[in-house]
Amino acid sequence: MKEYFPTSKIQFEGASSKNPLAFKHYNPDEIVEGKTMREHLRFAAPYWHVMRNTLGDPFGAGTAQMPWDDGSDSVENALNRVDVFFEFLEKMDMDFYCWHDRDIAPELNDLAASNAALDKVVAKLKEKQNETGKKLLWGTACLFNHPRYSQGAATSPDARVYAYAAAQVKKALECTKELDGLGYTFWGGREGYSTLLNTNMKRELDNLATFLHMAIDHADKIGYTGPFYIEPKPREPATHQYDSDAAACLNFLREYGLTDRFKLNLETNHATLAGHTMEHEMTVAANAGLLGSVDANRGDTLLGWDTDQFPTDIYGTTQVMLVILGMGGFTTGGLNFDSKRRRESHEPIDLIHAHIGGMDTFARGLKIAAAIRADGRLSDFVKERYASFDEGIGAKVAAGNTSFEELEKAALAGGEPVISSGRQEMLENLINEFI
Amino acid sequence: MKEYFPTSKIQFEGASSKNPLAFKHYNPDEIVEGKTMREHLRFAAPYWHVMRNTLGDPFGAGTAQMPWDDGSDSVENALNRVDVFFEFLEKMDMDFYCWHDRDIAPELNDLAASNAALDKVVAKLKEKQNETGKKLLWGTACLFNHPRYSQGAATSPDARVYAYAAAQVKKALECTKELDGLGYTFWGGREGYSTLLNTNMKRELDNLATFLHMAIDHADKIGYTGPFYIEPKPREPATHQYDSDAAACLNFLREYGLTDRFKLNLETNHATLAGHTMEHEMTVAANAGLLGSVDANRGDTLLGWDTDQFPTDIYGTTQVMLVILGMGGFTTGGLNFDSKRRRESHEPIDLIHAHIGGMDTFARGLKIAAAIRADGRLSDFVKERYASFDEGIGAKVAAGNTSFEELEKAALAGGEPVISSGRQEMLENLINEFI
Amino acid sequence: MKEYFPTSKIQFEGASSKNPLAFKHYNPDEIVEGKTMREHLRFAAPYWHVMRNTLGDPFGAGTAQMPWDDGSDSVENALNRVDVFFEFLEKMDMDFYCWHDRDIAPELNDLAASNAALDKVVAKLKEKQNETGKKLLWGTACLFNHPRYSQGAATSPDARVYAYAAAQVKKALECTKELDGLGYTFWGGREGYSTLLNTNMKRELDNLATFLHMAIDHADKIGYTGPFYIEPKPREPATHQYDSDAAACLNFLREYGLTDRFKLNLETNHATLAGHTMEHEMTVAANAGLLGSVDANRGDTLLGWDTDQFPTDIYGTTQVMLVILGMGGFTTGGLNFDSKRRRESHEPIDLIHAHIGGMDTFARGLKIAAAIRADGRLSDFVKERYASFDEGIGAKVAAGNTSFEELEKAALAGGEPVISSGRQEMLENLINEFI
Amino acid sequence: MKEYFPTSKIQFEGASSKNPLAFKHYNPDEIVEGKTMREHLRFAAPYWHVMRNTLGDPFGAGTAQMPWDDGSDSVENALNRVDVFFEFLEKMDMDFYCWHDRDIAPELNDLAASNAALDKVVAKLKEKQNETGKKLLWGTACLFNHPRYSQGAATSPDARVYAYAAAQVKKALECTKELDGLGYTFWGGREGYSTLLNTNMKRELDNLATFLHMAIDHADKIGYTGPFYIEPKPREPATHQYDSDAAACLNFLREYGLTDRFKLNLETNHATLAGHTMEHEMTVAANAGLLGSVDANRGDTLLGWDTDQFPTDIYGTTQVMLVILGMGGFTTGGLNFDSKRRRESHEPIDLIHAHIGGMDTFARGLKIAAAIRADGRLSDFVKERYASFDEGIGAKVAAGNTSFEELEKAALAGGEPVISSGRQEMLENLINEFI
Repeated sequence: MKEYFPTSKIQFEGASSKNPLAFKHYNPDEIVEGKTMREHLRFAAPYWHVMRNTLGDPFGAGTAQMPWDDGSDSVENALNRVDVFFEFLEKMDMDFYCWHDRDIAPELNDLAASNAALDKVVAKLKEKQNETGKKLLWGTACLFNHPRYSQGAATSPDARVYAYAAAQVKKALECTKELDGLGYTFWGGREGYSTLLNTNMKRELDNLATFLHMAIDHADKIGYTGPFYIEPKPREPATHQYDSDAAACLNFLREYGLTDRFKLNLETNHATLAGHTMEHEMTVAANAGLLGSVDANRGDTLLGWDTDQFPTDIYGTTQVMLVILGMGGFTTGGLNFDSKRRRESHEPIDLIHAHIGGMDTFARGLKIAAAIRADGRLSDFVKERYASFDEGIGAKVAAGNTSFEELEKAALAGGEPVISSGRQEMLENLINEFI
Repeated sequence: MKEYFPTSKIQFEGASSKNPLAFKHYNPDEIVEGKTMREHLRFAAPYWHVMRNTLGDPFGAGTAQMPWDDGSDSVENALNRVDVFFEFLEKMDMDFYCWHDRDIAPELNDLAASNAALDKVVAKLKEKQNETGKKLLWGTACLFNHPRYSQGAATSPDARVYAYAAAQVKKALECTKELDGLGYTFWGGREGYSTLLNTNMKRELDNLATFLHMAIDHADKIGYTGPFYIEPKPREPATHQYDSDAAACLNFLREYGLTDRFKLNLETNHATLAGHTMEHEMTVAANAGLLGSVDANRGDTLLGWDTDQFPTDIYGTTQVMLVILGMGGFTTGGLNFDSKRRRESHEPIDLIHAHIGGMDTFARGLKIAAAIRADGRLSDFVKERYASFDEGIGAKVAAGNTSFEELEKAALAGGEPVISSGRQEMLENLINEFI
Repeated sequence: MKEYFPTSKIQFEGASSKNPLAFKHYNPDEIVEGKTMREHLRFAAPYWHVMRNTLGDPFGAGTAQMPWDDGSDSVENALNRVDVFFEFLEKMDMDFYCWHDRDIAPELNDLAASNAALDKVVAKLKEKQNETGKKLLWGTACLFNHPRYSQGAATSPDARVYAYAAAQVKKALECTKELDGLGYTFWGGREGYSTLLNTNMKRELDNLATFLHMAIDHADKIGYTGPFYIEPKPREPATHQYDSDAAACLNFLREYGLTDRFKLNLETNHATLAGHTMEHEMTVAANAGLLGSVDANRGDTLLGWDTDQFPTDIYGTTQVMLVILGMGGFTTGGLNFDSKRRRESHEPIDLIHAHIGGMDTFARGLKIAAAIRADGRLSDFVKERYASFDEGIGAKVAAGNTSFEELEKAALAGGEPVISSGRQEMLENLINEFI
Repeated sequence: MKEYFPTSKIQFEGASSKNPLAFKHYNPDEIVEGKTMREHLRFAAPYWHVMRNTLGDPFGAGTAQMPWDDGSDSVENALNRVDVFFEFLEKMDMDFYCWHDRDIAPELNDLAASNAALDKVVAKLKEKQNETGKKLLWGTACLFNHPRYSQGAATSPDARVYAYAAAQVKKALECTKELDGLGYTFWGGREGYSTLLNTNMKRELDNLATFLHMAIDHADKIGYTGPFYIEPKPREPATHQYDSDAAACLNFLREYGLTDRFKLNLETNHATLAGHTMEHEMTVAANAGLLGSVDANRGDTLLGWDTDQFPTDIYGTTQVMLVILGMGGFTTGGLNFDSKRRRESHEPIDLIHAHIGGMDTFARGLKIAAAIRADGRLSDFVKERYASFDEGIGAKVAAGNTSFEELEKAALAGGEPVISSGRQEMLENLINEFI
């Protein structure tokens, strides 16, 4: 078999190397806070970006060189891509991957034919998983590319489209189960609206909730016991997606009784497009006990769309790892690089540079986060800041057994409170000590 | 008593007038959809902007001419302002008003003194209400201006501040009750964080929920039976307020069991700062049955802060009125102009121009919305768009009694769905027909 | 020949009609300020959006129904589209159109073949122009779609790409000349950078200026005497285009001595993406005497990319027409609808709805702007506001013959200036009187 | 004299310290690229933030503890602040400072009185400069705070205001000269508009240019030979300032013939508010030979206003220092911390934390930038990327002596160009090697 990513270029060479192709910080077997980096970080490669992204944009054709791809929609070509993808996973020493149904197998003339093609590719993926030990972090169905979904899938105004989407998710869920997938994700790129003028939001959301309950029912039927993930994203491609940020998703899940089986899959660039930092979104989800998995990328906050850049900002990966370590690490989830090279980085080797950068930056974020936690000054500061709620009237507040009358008495007696500085600048300096 | 807003300048002169000081569209007694404009629109003036806003900004001192104000923090000055404010209400023929405790009365050396001052002003407000028939749409406590609240009030890390805030809300709620206020609002400008580095979000939100439950308890105790409103706002003044948009508020209210007594008070500029249209936020709240009241203003979406401009965009007021008419009108809520003149519009007469513009534009939005509803083409289009969920497999989806298997069968049998155009451009033209 | 846009649906039916397919406001022969609407508005259709836009987006395939198109890159298909396009122009009664070279003819295996194909289509366009009297508002070369231009065309780091771009512009300019085009436009979608890390900005801009000077030289050689236009746009598709807004373009044109032959072609959505209103950008260009032509569309300021919506906001078209009337109308330029339907509006009839909406809204903006000018209150207010510069020390400032000393004397003598209100709210009300 | 910033807390303790109050990276005497850090970085403290910023915001009162300030507008209080400020400069070992006239001395009842107060403070500043060796990096006049300037200063519609502004700048320039200031800055916070409806942009810009030419004339008269700086900023406080970004400023300077005496003073947060990276703005200015000085702070790109945070992002300071080293270092300019603590950081010691963080982060950026330059891989990559313009047809382009015909010939002969990857991800990894 032809080799597309030569081994010689991809190895851990240690921090002293000048070779930008090598890992400087990611050593999968290094122990941090009692687990290996591999166990902490659970890196996954997205099939769509690695194998299928041509690097086109709204103003230009694709540029990516894909010497392994014959450009056709044939099942043969699809099967061939599987080999190249697993070569990539092995060379990068990544343990997990993710797919949409239509990334791995072609959409053919009718649903039955598409399903048959999918079965063939899934069989090959299973074989390769067995050979290599790689695992499916999550599967999902692409319900946003085809014109039939242009007005929604599970929120389509057309019941035939809704049925089609249900059939597609049913199959994708079965394939996920077949591949022992650890999770199943919903990203509702077309579940929203272009204009409220033609939209019955209530009806669409009721239908969406029904759809998700049916997904749970079907999971129970086929024995899929993993979590479902909702992936929030605002502003693109719909003018307004319903799942616009973590809070919007949680509100929906709570309203429709879906919090038992659904968690969130959070993406950095989706967070920033919604006007939140990634650590905000992660904290919101983690506080609700519903942080499932992470799409590890980065946006350009001076631009207004999903740039899906590779995560190379050490501050960002440090913050993400602080939250993940803080919640005790991933259970079923992991760090999926939902990142793409720039359109100008069109050579296969750029895939390698890009993923090494992302993995190294996360490895570094992990080490820094662990060091900050070991140091203890940051957490001590925060604990101390709330200390007044550990005793006296504060403790009664925390326990929920006081009242406005009692608090008023305390306030009248206490005089003007003198508060301490929040010390933001000092704490920012402290973080920089560890960078 | 001196007159600050001469009557001769403020009267309904009909659409033919060239005098920009007169109403062109707002005729309080005109009947629209079976109610008077007055009953539909329920205009309220905000005490803070009308009486207290000096029009300063972060780069410059206040400019507003306030010939009625001696510039002091005395109770006498505060009482004097009440007369001027009621002159304003009467001249504008507005039926409602809103206040923060610290707008109407000064914050004095200690809480007891501030409370005593508040009592005096409330007594005068009650008297003026009785004289004029004006009503309090809602009251609220200012928990964001004083340095003690710089790190939060009900989410402060300091229990003494929390107690102070509780005492202040207790008093403000009692004053609202005393004035037969129709609602009580929470706006959490400091309930959030400047940096997550020093913040325990979970602890703060638990405390906030406890605070709000105590407010309900106290309302029950004093016999205040009106609704509480939460007013969402993102990005300012905290780096991140917890109540950042309608969905974030609803998620919080659901999590902590607060949906029975709390509704939302939505502001246009807060919606747009969160990246939503006002009609989106209103629809989200209305679908949850929790749209309480509206702060009627407008932002500049090319700027990144709360410009609180007067609502002069006819498209915007039409959309707002479509939602309000669609939900059957306000119950306790109304249209509070939480709007301020530009810093350059520093003369008292600019207050008149500004409110006339806002009222007229809303009157026009009301008439247009009613005309669109009477015309029926828009609602017919939307109804027809979802017609496939009224029969067959679609109706089973709507009723929640189908499954992925059944839908898959329908999809396999049905072939590729051919969907209809969403007709956004046609519908936009239709709206323009009525503008 | 098959008819794709049936005549019966497209006619001027007057304001009373309920048929959304008809013009309500655009009457090409109606006189406004001494010219027909047709002469004022000079509507142009963009070949790319009308004929070639499949309505795909970064997350989904094209949806547009194009029953006239066989989907191939053949010259025959290209020639066939010309007939359909001219049917469209005639039915819409639009006098002008615009193209990129690669919209009207296919890019074939090599440049010579592409040029030959272009010649064939240009010959047919000329024939159709002669038949119908339609005119080319401007031509341009597509230097952003092909992978070779992914790192720039006239700012490419590769001299071979630069040469290719030069050859393509040379040909496009010759075709523009052949079709008696009134203008030639440069839009530098790839003239910028993805990252400054790999970019020599100075070298790229020097090369770009050389390129534009060669275009002027070539124009002189072939006898093309019309203006060149630069079209500013920020943030997309490059991370940073050099021509990011009007001021950036003017700065470049001034630095490199290009203001004699270059003007600006301003697009509304590009203005708003740059953080400016369209009237700001137009005023900046008009003040410099360099406002050439307009791409008439609209953005969604809550989204961060070029939505290119049809201009249906009456406020916006009023502002644009105020500037155009204020500068005495277009000379070579016009209103080109660089607008696309939403992806969900995939039927041919949606093209008709969309353009009718745009044309009608501009017709209305024209009438409103003319009425505001006839009324005179707005311009009188502005004139009066600056009256102090018409006399005394102010007149000396205006004439440029005073000094800091003299002004200091005036200031010391004059005491504290008392300034008048800017009356923004009153003026906004005044505009609403005319809407 | 009372000590407000105890020496014991502020010393260089080396990188091993756990004390967040100490410098970790800034060693003023350390040599980098042949100069001391002190000579490279030229840190300046802004009088307004250090001494006068109460940390108020649009929603809340000031919080800053200023134990040295009696809260009055007296000259005595102003003189007293000078001592505290110089204590701060000395403790921080910063060599430069900057002021607005109204920061250092009060605005009194009339201009003559204000000028007299200013003279007294300037005399004391001169004395302290002589004592300590500290230098004035630049002076400026505050033309944005007072209500008289609410509609502009040098662009005011009122000639009396214009004269007042001229008088104020005249005096501030004379004071700058008296203190041997190295530069004089214009920041036009009110030079712009709130609405174009009431604005004659052309007239205002003509007046502004006249104003600046008079400043040059007056400088010549009094023997001030340093540069003038324009400081660009978009969106706040005016709806649109004229000096919105570097390109807008350069366009203005070129149009009005002001490039000989004016340079730009660029601020990071102003750059990001305009949608540019700071390195973009700096490169634009440096390429024009007009980068004068830097206001070193940082924004929060998820918020929409000037947060003026301290520069603690190592990536940012590295990029800034790469441009500064690339242009050969500052001449008259320096790094002025136009940064403020968060409102919650209200203690004097927070000033120390904050400036240490900013200075250390810049020291680190300097070292990293120098290391990247010494390494050479980045600059080699860029040089190589443009190599095709060093020979053959590319060299003719660079020399400006070719034509479209010649380039077309080359393109037709050359076939399809095969371009190299831009390698953005590899270069981002390379930067991370040095962080």
